[in-house]
This record gives sequence, C-alpha cells and structure tokens, in this order.
Amino acid sequence: MNRQITLASRPVGYPKESDFNLVEAPMPTPGDGEVLVRTIYLSVDPYMRGRINATKSYAANVEIDEVMIGSVIAEVITTKHPDFKVGDIVNAGIGWQEYGVAAGDGLRKIDPTIAPISASGGILGMPGLTAYFGLLEVGKLQERETVFVSGAAGAVGSVVGQIAKIKGCRVVGSAGTDEKVAYVVDELGFDAAFNYKEVDDYNDELQRLLPDGIDVYFDNVGGSITDAVFPNLRIKGRVAICGQISQYNLEKPEMGPRFLWFMITKRARIEGFLVSEYADQHAEALVEMAGWLREGKLKYRETIEEGGIENAPAAFISMLKGGNIGKQLVKIADLSS
Amino acid sequence: MNRQITLASRPVGYPKESDFNLVEAPMPTPGDGEVLVRTIYLSVDPYMRGRINATKSYAANVEIDEVMIGSVIAEVITTKHPDFKVGDIVNAGIGWQEYGVAAGDGLRKIDPTIAPISASGGILGMPGLTAYFGLLEVGKLQERETVFVSGAAGAVGSVVGQIAKIKGCRVVGSAGTDEKVAYVVDELGFDAAFNYKEVDDYNDELQRLLPDGIDVYFDNVGGSITDAVFPNLRIKGRVAICGQISQYNLEKPEMGPRFLWFMITKRARIEGFLVSEYADQHAEALVEMAGWLREGKLKYRETIEEGGIENAPAAFISMLKGGNIGKQLVKIADLSS
Repeated sequence: MNRQITLASRPVGYPKESDFNLVEAPMPTPGDGEVLVRTIYLSVDPYMRGRINATKSYAANVEIDEVMIGSVIAEVITTKHPDFKVGDIVNAGIGWQEYGVAAGDGLRKIDPTIAPISASGGILGMPGLTAYFGLLEVGKLQERETVFVSGAAGAVGSVVGQIAKIKGCRVVGSAGTDEKVAYVVDELGFDAAFNYKEVDDYNDELQRLLPDGIDVYFDNVGGSITDAVFPNLRIKGRVAICGQISQYNLEKPEMGPRFLWFMITKRARIEGFLVSEYADQHAEALVEMAGWLREGKLKYRETIEEGGIENAPAAFISMLKGGNIGKQLVKIADLSS
Repeated sequence: MNRQITLASRPVGYPKESDFNLVEAPMPTPGDGEVLVRTIYLSVDPYMRGRINATKSYAANVEIDEVMIGSVIAEVITTKHPDFKVGDIVNAGIGWQEYGVAAGDGLRKIDPTIAPISASGGILGMPGLTAYFGLLEVGKLQERETVFVSGAAGAVGSVVGQIAKIKGCRVVGSAGTDEKVAYVVDELGFDAAFNYKEVDDYNDELQRLLPDGIDVYFDNVGGSITDAVFPNLRIKGRVAICGQISQYNLEKPEMGPRFLWFMITKRARIEGFLVSEYADQHAEALVEMAGWLREGKLKYRETIEEGGIENAPAAFISMLKGGNIGKQLVKIADLSS
C-alpha cells in the first residue's frame, strides 16, 4: 500500500494538523515513459501555504481530499523510461506520498556524488535557485553593494546572504531566534543580523547596521520588517519579493504604512518573481552553486523531521512558524542501497 | 523692481495662501555666460508640494523665506551668453519670480513656431516627457496592451493615455470630475474613464472596464485607487510610480492594505522614476512628441491663472486639489513683441 497526506480542510490562520488526513491508497503503476518512485525526503515549503487557500495563488490550488502538492527526493523503483534505471535518485513533483508515478521526460536526476541527496531539496534545489536568481537576476546585485535579507536563516535567505558575500557585498539579515542570528553571522559569514522578535524599531536597527542604506533587499517575510526597508533604500535600490511568510497565516489582511512615495524619491524598483521563470538557466546555475559548495564558499544546514510521512503536517506547520534552520525536510524512508 | 513668491511657513496638510509671501527684490544682474529673463508663464506642479516639507524629498527643500522653486517660460531681456539673444524664449529654473538670472549653458531654448510657448511647460515640456518616459521606458508598454492611468486629466495623465492610444492599447483613466472624465474620453480618445469621487468600489470598476486585467499602471495619485490595481494586474504587469498626489497633503501618513503578495503571484514590477533620469533622451523624445502634436495625435488643454505672480500660490493650491484640466500655469506677463 501507499500512504498519502491529503487536505482535510482549508486552514484558517496557521494550519493545524487536523487540516490534513493520512490516507492509504493502492500502489500506483507506471505506464510507458513513466517511473515509479519511492519518496526518501519530502520537502515542505512556505509557498505551499498559498496553495491550500480557497483563492487561487499563482498556480492551481489543492482541492479538499487531494494529495498535498510538493516536491520529493525519491528513488526510482520501477522504470518504463529509457533514461532512468532502478536506483536513480530524482526530484519529482508527486506531492506528499510515499510512492508516486512521474513522467520521465522533464524529471530531474540527482547526482549523489556532488552532495548528500537531501541538498537537492535545498541549497542545490529550488530554494538555492530561488536565492540565486532572486539576488542576481531580479535584484541585479553588483559587487560591493549592500544587501538586506529577511528570513535570513531559512532555506532561501541563508543562500542569499552567502552569494552576496561571494560577490563582495555587505550583508545584513533578520531572523527570529538568537540561535539563527548566531548561525548566519558566525557560520555563514553575514556581516550582521538581528533577531526581529527582540528589536523594537526596525528602522533604527537598519540605519545602525546599514548606515549607507540598502541597495538590494531580498524579502522572504513582508510585514513590518519590510516596511522599515523603504526609507532605507539607496537611490536605484531594488527589492526582490520572494515570499511574504508573515502574511500567509493571517485571518484577515493586514494594513501597513503606504510607501510608494519612497519609490519615486529613491527611483527604486520592486519586483516579484518565481524561480520557475528562470527554468532554462537552472542547470547552469546549479553547476556554479555546486562549485561554490565544493570550494566551501557555500554552507548549509537542514532541519530534518525523521518521523515518516505522518509527521509531514507537523513539520510544515513548524516551518511556517520558523522552527527550522535552513531547509525543512521530512525523512520518509532510507535509500535501498 | 522684481517680485517674488517666498515660502513663509511649512504647510500642514494642504498649503494655504498664508504659507507664502509676496516680496519685492532688486532686479538681478546677469554675469558673463548668464542671461536675465522675464517670466511669461510660471509652472505649478505637484512635485513642488514635496519640496516645501521639512523632510528632504529627492532634491533640496525650499527653506523658509527662500524663493519657491520651479520652472518658468521666460523671455531673454539681457544676454551675456553668445547662444542667446534678446527675445529668445527659454525654460528656466528661476523659481516663482518675475525676473531671474540663469546660466546660459544648459538652458533650454523654446521654438515658438512649433506650438504656443505655453506648451513647453506642459505637453512639450516636463509633464509630457514624464508621460513619455514613464509609459515607454519605465512601463515598457507594448502594442495592444492594457493601460490604466490615475490623474488622467492632468498634465501628465492626459498625455499618458494618448501615447497609449498611439501604441494601439486599451486605456482607462480615473479623474475627479465628470467634466474631466468626459474630456479624456470624448476629446482625448481614452477607451473609458471613471470619476473616482462617484465610484464606491474601485476594484469592481477596474474589473468592469479592464476585464482582462492591467498590463501597465501609470500612477499619479496613489492611495485607494492604486490599492485596487494590484489584484487586477496581469502576469508581468508593470507599475510606473510617477506621483502620489493623494498622499502629499496628509497631516499624518496613511495606512493601506498590504499588496506585496500580488507582486509574487503576478511576477509584477513597481518602479518609481524621475523624468530627469532620461535627460539625455529628452530632445529626441520632444521631436517625436512635436510630430504627434502636428499630426493631431496628441491634444492638450491648459488651465491658466491670469492674475500675475500674486496668484501663483492660489493656482498651486487649486492644482493640488484637482482644479485644473491639463497643465496648470500662471500667466505673469505678455511677450514683449
């Protein structure tokens, strides 16, 4: 049998475990050109919160009783596609389940000799690519500029800051615990960071840590941290909007101070993006990222929930509340070999 | 003697006439490389409101008892620069006064055979160029896209809509009186417009008038009209922030609904700009604009206060409250010839 997590009800505010069901389903059978995979790691990501609302996000929503959407790191156990053999490791968008069938065409194969396969869900996967393209393509970061990143200890933010350091920039981050602040400064090499739960005036803090202003703001969280950025943008500053996790679990939309006037005085730019827009450059970027990883210029941590698929909802909720450092994964099974 | 308008006090909320003084000053004398000019038309513009606050805008503020900043259309009456002769018409940044001295280098000469010289303060001047570069360079407008412009009957907005029509786009505008709405639709060829003082739900109105969404929003006003745009942006929509006139005269900053999430789902861009950033392309753009004017593809109206320099503050205040259709000017003197 296969086990799956389905959406039981649409969450109001933060999701609860009761918003999800654990169900059994027959083992799926691959057709021609398909592979059957067994999930090793399941990825839980902030974007998923938007996909379980009633209102459409940027892609189709999960319907009630449907399997939760998402990407897994999985092992091929039956193959009907010439490019894949049993034992290959792949990233597959089969959602939250122990087994799934995926079309071989377009399936991304993971090279387990570059890094542990879990990295393909984080620094060498979608979060790492999101950091890379958001900072370099959307943010158009230049050498020796100043960067501020919110959600600095998360799967994306932690990579943003390190790439900015590789580019010779001054980097400041915000995060939600002292442990995270210490991690990004002491281990990842950020120039400074602050615990947003302990700081009263974000504007003062940004002026203190980035007295010359901010060239590029990489926004993962939104809300009042983001409000404080606009007065501190430099002329021709850029704001890459990656996520707004502070807003995803509100029961009603929040109000905030209007800031568009600053866009004129700073001649600044705000741009939202999805990593999928850069799909044709992903492979090339991963080569560069893998090189930085090998050279020790990129480091990463993962937060891995070990308890199997039944713990995916708890891991998802914990991640939404900032319980993770680096990429949050759920371990579903061991590799066969 | 020369007469000038100086700043008497920093306005709280809407400026009052008592925030300005009419003063007399000795007639200035041009030095080598300078010209003495006599003001024919004085320009009052929304951006001036930001320059009389205590907090710095994008350029230096006017200090108390200083002459109000601004640009005039003026006639050269004494010349100590080889490129200018008596009787030449120029745009000069001498501020609100009847006479002033300006350096000849960089002074823009007006050709009175192309259009009435007042047009150089509007459609063939800074407001027209603002519309041109904001729509085409910042907004990156493409043929057959959809455009929404707020402040549609103003000096900038009225040109934005007409350029969008030249580019084969569907254009909708908002304005503050039925007369303005009729003007932009019946005379300027906008596809539709609405009176924002008579419409309750801007989101509904935008959905009705632009059911396929908005590719480019040209924002002159900010506030709740702008709030309604974000849910209606199309994928890869662009927002050119030109002005935020609804916010300039508030006694305290306004709150509004947060909208950055829409930037992600729409992969949209917001960009603030100043027309001065495109200074090296102004001359070329003016040639194109003058061509459109000659061909009847661009039309314009002006609102001219006739009462001389003592009426400049009243004209400025009236413009801030939407009393103008098209460019607001103050007539200071007749041409000599």
